[in-house]
This record gives sequence, C-alpha cells and structure tokens, in this order.
Amino acid sequence: MVIDFIADYYNNIEHYPVLSQVKPGYLRHLLPRSAPLAAEPIEEIIKDIETHIIPGITHWQHPAHFAYFPCTASTAGILGELLTAGLNVVGFSWVASPAATELEAIVMDWLGELLNLPKPFLFSGNGGGVIMGTTCEALLATLVAARDRKLAEIGEGEIGIGKLVVYCSDQTHCAFAKAAKIVGIKQGNVRVVPASKTTSFGLCPDELVRAVRSDRDRGLVPLFLCATVGTTPTAAVDPLLPLCRVAREHDIWVHVDAAYAGAACVCPEFRHVIDGVEGADSFSLNAHKWFLTTLDCCCLWVKDPSALRKSLSTNPEYLRNQASDEGGVIDYKDWQVTLSRRFRCLKLWMVLRSNGVANLRNFLRSHVRMAEAFEKLVAEDARFEIVVPRRFSMVCFRMVAGARHDGVANLVNKKLLESINGSGRVFMTHAVAGGIYMLRLAVGATLTEARHVAEAWKVVREQADAMDVEGIVGC
Amino acid sequence: MVIDFIADYYNNIEHYPVLSQVKPGYLRHLLPRSAPLAAEPIEEIIKDIETHIIPGITHWQHPAHFAYFPCTASTAGILGELLTAGLNVVGFSWVASPAATELEAIVMDWLGELLNLPKPFLFSGNGGGVIMGTTCEALLATLVAARDRKLAEIGEGEIGIGKLVVYCSDQTHCAFAKAAKIVGIKQGNVRVVPASKTTSFGLCPDELVRAVRSDRDRGLVPLFLCATVGTTPTAAVDPLLPLCRVAREHDIWVHVDAAYAGAACVCPEFRHVIDGVEGADSFSLNAHKWFLTTLDCCCLWVKDPSALRKSLSTNPEYLRNQASDEGGVIDYKDWQVTLSRRFRCLKLWMVLRSNGVANLRNFLRSHVRMAEAFEKLVAEDARFEIVVPRRFSMVCFRMVAGARHDGVANLVNKKLLESINGSGRVFMTHAVAGGIYMLRLAVGATLTEARHVAEAWKVVREQADAMDVEGIVGC
Repeated sequence: MVIDFIADYYNNIEHYPVLSQVKPGYLRHLLPRSAPLAAEPIEEIIKDIETHIIPGITHWQHPAHFAYFPCTASTAGILGELLTAGLNVVGFSWVASPAATELEAIVMDWLGELLNLPKPFLFSGNGGGVIMGTTCEALLATLVAARDRKLAEIGEGEIGIGKLVVYCSDQTHCAFAKAAKIVGIKQGNVRVVPASKTTSFGLCPDELVRAVRSDRDRGLVPLFLCATVGTTPTAAVDPLLPLCRVAREHDIWVHVDAAYAGAACVCPEFRHVIDGVEGADSFSLNAHKWFLTTLDCCCLWVKDPSALRKSLSTNPEYLRNQASDEGGVIDYKDWQVTLSRRFRCLKLWMVLRSNGVANLRNFLRSHVRMAEAFEKLVAEDARFEIVVPRRFSMVCFRMVAGARHDGVANLVNKKLLESINGSGRVFMTHAVAGGIYMLRLAVGATLTEARHVAEAWKVVREQADAMDVEGIVGC
Repeated sequence: MVIDFIADYYNNIEHYPVLSQVKPGYLRHLLPRSAPLAAEPIEEIIKDIETHIIPGITHWQHPAHFAYFPCTASTAGILGELLTAGLNVVGFSWVASPAATELEAIVMDWLGELLNLPKPFLFSGNGGGVIMGTTCEALLATLVAARDRKLAEIGEGEIGIGKLVVYCSDQTHCAFAKAAKIVGIKQGNVRVVPASKTTSFGLCPDELVRAVRSDRDRGLVPLFLCATVGTTPTAAVDPLLPLCRVAREHDIWVHVDAAYAGAACVCPEFRHVIDGVEGADSFSLNAHKWFLTTLDCCCLWVKDPSALRKSLSTNPEYLRNQASDEGGVIDYKDWQVTLSRRFRCLKLWMVLRSNGVANLRNFLRSHVRMAEAFEKLVAEDARFEIVVPRRFSMVCFRMVAGARHDGVANLVNKKLLESINGSGRVFMTHAVAGGIYMLRLAVGATLTEARHVAEAWKVVREQADAMDVEGIVGC
C-alpha cells in the first residue's frame, strides 16, 4: 500500500504546486490534540497523509524544483533506505554488524576512485572514507580533529583554543561558521575573506595569505581553511591548488566542501575543478544532493584517519569487544561525532550498481545541458543577464530592467522571484553576492527534463511581462 | 521484490546466528574492486545481499538479540522510513516543507504529553521538542546552548571557556564526555563523579554538591549536568529531584538523558523514575531504542528553545524567506547542529497511530515481564546472582562460581559471555560497574517472546555447565 502510495505520488507529482501554498499553523487544527489510545488502520494514516500532509509538502522531487540545491531521490536510493530500515542494524563498531562497516569502506573506495581522488584519501592508500549525515557533521569532525592536533602541538594552556583562527570566504556555507562556533573557536577568529565578482566569487589566495600573515603577526594560530567547490550562492569554485599551497606553508588543515558539485567529478571533463585536492586534508560531497542517493548521505574522505580517531574515539567498557581490542577493524564510531549510525552505505552501493557509472555520468551531464539551455534563453532576452558564469547545473541570473543601480534591480528581482514562486509552477531561490540579488535555477531533480526547464523560463518571462517594473524603479 | 526480501528476512531471522560469525576483512575479496560501468539488475544486487551481506549482519532484529540496548524496528517504523525516503524533503526551514516542521512539533507535543512531561517542555507551554538523529546530537546542542548562555554572562574573555566545568557520573554514557570535548570543555573539567553499588549506581547528590563546591572554590564555573535515567551499564537512575535542586542553586543546566528508559514513562507505573524532571532544562529519549521507531529518532525537549536558537541559528541570505522573516514559524535548523534534516517525525507519528498508546504500553510491559521472568530464573540458580536490582527490561547478572574475589569472578564471566555469544543462539553484552564484570540481558527486540528469554537462560546454563570453572578459578 505504501509502495503504491509512493508510486502514485510520483505519477501525480507534476500536478502539485512545487512550493507548498499552506499558511503557518495550518496543520495543528487538522490533527487530533493527542495520540490515539487504540490502534488505527494504515489506510486511515495514508488517507491523512494524502489529505493533510501532501498539501504542506514543498516537493523536492518535483521536476520543477529548482531551489536550493537538488536533493535527489531515485528508485535505488529509496529501496536502499527501505532495506536499511528493514535490517535496522546499528553499525557503531565492526562487531555490531561487520557488513555495515566493511561495505561502507569498500563503497567509499569505489566512489573515491570514481572521483579520481588522490590515493592517500582511500583505504588502499592509508586514508579512508566514512559516511555521515550532512556536511555539517563532516565539518565538525574535521574541525575537532584539526583543533586537537594543533592544541597537542601548541599546548591547551589557558588560552590555547582562544588563539586558533579558521578561514573561509564570504561565499562559504554558513555551516562552517556554525561548526567553528560549536567547537569553541572564538567568533572573532572566524576569518571571512570577501570574494568578489572579479574572481567569479572564488576565494583569492593572495587575500588568504594577507589574512593569515596578519593573524600570525598578532600571535594568533591559523588552524583550518574551508575551501568550497561549488558554493551555495553561485556554485563558485575556490582554486584548490594555490590555496592548499598557502595552507601547507602555514600548517593549516584544508577541508574541501564539494557538497553539491563534487558529484560532477565522476565525469572526467569536470574533474579539473578539484585539481589541487592532493594538497588538502579532507574532502566531502553529499551523495544525497546530486547523486541520486536519498537524504542523508555525506561522504567524507580524510588522508589521516588517526587524526579523527584521536579526537573522536571512545572506548567504554560496555562497547569493548575482541575484534576492536585486537585492532585491524574499523570502528566508525571513532571517525564521527555520533555513536549510533545507520547502514547508509547500502543505498549508495545500490545507486552505484543499479545505475552503473556510465548512466550516472549521463544523468549529471543531462542536467548540465539543461542548465546550458536555460542560460542561452536568458542571454537571448535583453531584459535579463547572467550574473555569474555558469558552471555545473546552476544558472544565476537577474532582470536588468533598466534599473540604474543595483539597489533598484535587487528590489525588482526580489519581486520577480516572489511572483515566480507564487505561481506554484516552479520553485527557485535566490542569492546575494557582491551586493547583487540574483535568481538561482539549480537543475538536478531526478525527474527534470528539458521541457521543465523550458517551462521554467516561460514562467520567468511571463512574470517579468506582468511586472510593473516602471512602478518599482520609480519608487 | 525488496518488500518480499524484507518479509522473508523476518520469516527466516531465527535461523541466522544473532552475532555475525564472519572474520575481519571477509567482504573485500567477495566484491568487485570498483563500481560497475553498466547498470546491474536489482535481482543481482538482492542476490548479493543474501549471499554476501546477510552473513556479515549482527541481527539487531533477531528475537534473541539481548545486547547493548534494543534498536526496535516495526512495520509502522519501516513504512514511515520508506515514506520519508519517497518524499525525500529537506525540512531545514518551515518553508522548505511546512508539513515536515508542523507535524514534528505536533508529534513532539503528543509524545511529551504521553510521558507526562511538565508543560514548560511542550510547545503548548512555550518550550518545545525537536527530533535529532542521536543522543550525541542532543547533548551537543544543549551543551552549546548552555555554554553560550554562560559565556554571555561571564564574558568569553581570554579564558572563559577554559573555566567551564561539566558533571556526570562514571555510569554516564561516553557520548557526554565526547560532546563536552567537542564543544571545547577542557578535558580536566569534565567532572566524573563515581557512583557506587550502595546507591544502585545512581549519581549521589551529596557527591555532586561536593564536586561543585570544590570547583567553585577553585574559581571554576559549573555549567552542565548530564543526569541519566536508565544508564547504559546497569539501567541505573540518577535521582532527578535532589540533583536538579543542587543544579538550580548553582545555575547549572541539567539535561536528562533517558535514551533507553524514557520510553517506559508512557506507562504510568514507571513515570516516577523521572520525577523531578520539572527542575531540568532538557530531556531526551531515543524512540529508535525501545519505542518501535527505526533508527534514527532521538526526541529532545527543551524548556527554553531560544537558548538553542541563540547558539545554533544561522540566517544566510540564500535561506531567507518571508515566513521566517515574519517569525511565527519554527525553523528547526536553528534548534540543531546540522542544517539538513530528514522528515523523521513521519515514522514516529505512524508508530503512535498504527499501534495506539494502549498497545505501546503493553509492548513495553511485556518486555519488562520477560526480564522479570529471566531475573527469577537467575535468582533460583545458586551459581548465579543478580548484581544490580532490575529496573525496566534489563537484567544484570553474573556467575558467582565459588570465586573468592571479584577479579577471578570477572574472568569467569568474561569467558562465559564469550561462549554464550560464540553459540550464535543469543547475543548479550557486558558491563563493569563497581569493579564487577556482569552480563547484561536487555530485552526489547520487537519479536522477542517469553520462549526466547527462556532459551537464553538455557544457553547461559548450558555454557555454564560446560565451563571449566575450577580451571579458571585455579589459575
């Protein structure tokens, strides 16, 4: 019944408004005030899902979902999750379910090789990979490992942790500053280097050098750089090669956050965007974003797993066992923030096998081609401009609209986005970079076809036609 | 096909050895060296799961799985996960899928009321609940909130964070010390108060007072107490009422970790174990442990959600939206460590509804009765003793075996456990408390019936009969 429900959902998905049109608080008066005393039939629950839940869903799997970054489901991913829930094992240690640990290590080497990650990131090269829920967890784990390694060198002392400085650009995902805060980095020691349009919003290595030198001059200790390949606002790429060179000189841990764009590196023609990763310490991508693996599945590789283990391992008596005591097995609990962990590699393994690498590459390429097509349509309309050169499957654009300065253009585009999303026919989100408010069309939903992208452009044009631009500009 | 596979798995589960009997590294030579270029049929993958994965599974759903704490799957829980994966929405903000946020808030109030949590923990009382993956995340989130609130009072200064002290007992789960380390509490400032057999391994309030006073005398700042209801080693209960009284006097945040035993509080006869929770700041239980909700589902309630939000909220431009800007909606991203979040409340809602409260209570009570029966069997055999008075559904016992001191008895019981688990017929784990090595029989798997517990006792007796106790004692 549930399988049928899901099948029907996908059959009907194009009839739903992409962005839920409910108002805050809609659900509370539709449901009972408390849990039922007696069992209710599953039919009843499914009916309520149809009637009450579906209207409150913003449909991430809708082919016209172009907001944020994609979060791709697929048959293999969903069936993998189903199996994970069915077996419901807790693979914190090897002994707690050997297959969960061993399959994860194997699949992480498979995917690492597909990405052409340097050997030192793979188990076969004395590094290794681990699956977490989200990039936030990957950042936390690597930050703590780097922090403790540095404190072991400089001494925890009275003010050790207060001296540590971390670096990112103003395009880096907010998860990084949050993770830094969580691990006790002083807020004033999160160095946010501005990125500009001249570098297509990539982090400029010279700016990093300047920031690091200035910190060292003040007696502070550079700790960590979060470089991004495919930033959230504009899919910008920080240049890894020169950034890692700077970092090495100052003994800074470099994490490469390729949450969205990392997947593209399984295509040889995109692999160059992570050239230089050999100088980094850790690398992560979210297979749940643009790699058909349902939420959640963040893949993290590190060159030095012992750095994670030194910070994150626990060995309470009640978890001791012969296999762990003898060494020679991976206990993933010591690689991550949490103890319990789901059997997530099952779905990644199923996605890789049931699609095959060739199809996965074609899938990614088809999204890039659709984004190219949209970019072309935008460029052909004199009212619009492409704000940032397109990479991958995301187009950042705006209406120029005769506005004499960005402030007015920003207002116009904000209104435009509201009316686009209000149509319910597509869902896009926005970004602001270099002071420019832009619309983001992120192609990536599993069901998106060329016609949906053409339709998206139609919606944009129609809403632009209907806008009282003069009125807004005139204010 | 996958549904059939899972159905067959449960039909056959009693034929598998509970504890996987594979050797480290068994899987690598059974799988190809890299991901396939061409798609493979799902039949092929399912066959490999049967042949290669199942032998490496330690079967947490096996009715003779008595190790660690239970991690209960159920039909409703599995179907809930399936729906979550099918819809595959990312509910970080209200707008990103209003139903995901609103249903979570409603279900957390439902469950909070079932537990008879004081009103200030519920949304209807200006507190509120949130679902995370694991207790580790709940501890991290509350620790950071408490830390930042305290630092706002005393000043971050040069050494602010270095002054903060956190408290627990030596029975507290290792996740707490790990979380404290992650948020930058100095390792020397994690105050581990020894609990003894005289208090049934509950944390003694007088000992807490002594520790806190001593820290204050040294100029340190008490920050956080993690009290446990149902500790991992022995299911001990820290006395919340007097502990919260001490904490209040010294302005210490109290978190109640009821990961396993919290579920029992839906039965009125067990509710007294959390008496005093009204003095705590936060409370968590894992619905995936003993409440039929598949991994992962940690339910956290806090009295002051704004403390979480002050520490954990982010508001980058690319996530801004009208509903959030206007307030009046919950953006759960600001209540937790990670940004992305699965639609986890769906399965908890389905578990509550498709079982009904009455059946859920009976389910828990049946496990407690089985543990009572086992306890009785142990007590009747002169070779064995109950080490800690049983509470809930776990029995802590050991073989006395004529050993003149605990060291020898510990060795005897370690060997006994090895042979029990080596049989493949049951899986138990152990704990050491007060220097005593004991075996833990944790009843809680969904399929466990009285006959499985009787069989477990038979295995214990048989292995005890076969043991050369004299030989071990004689060494």
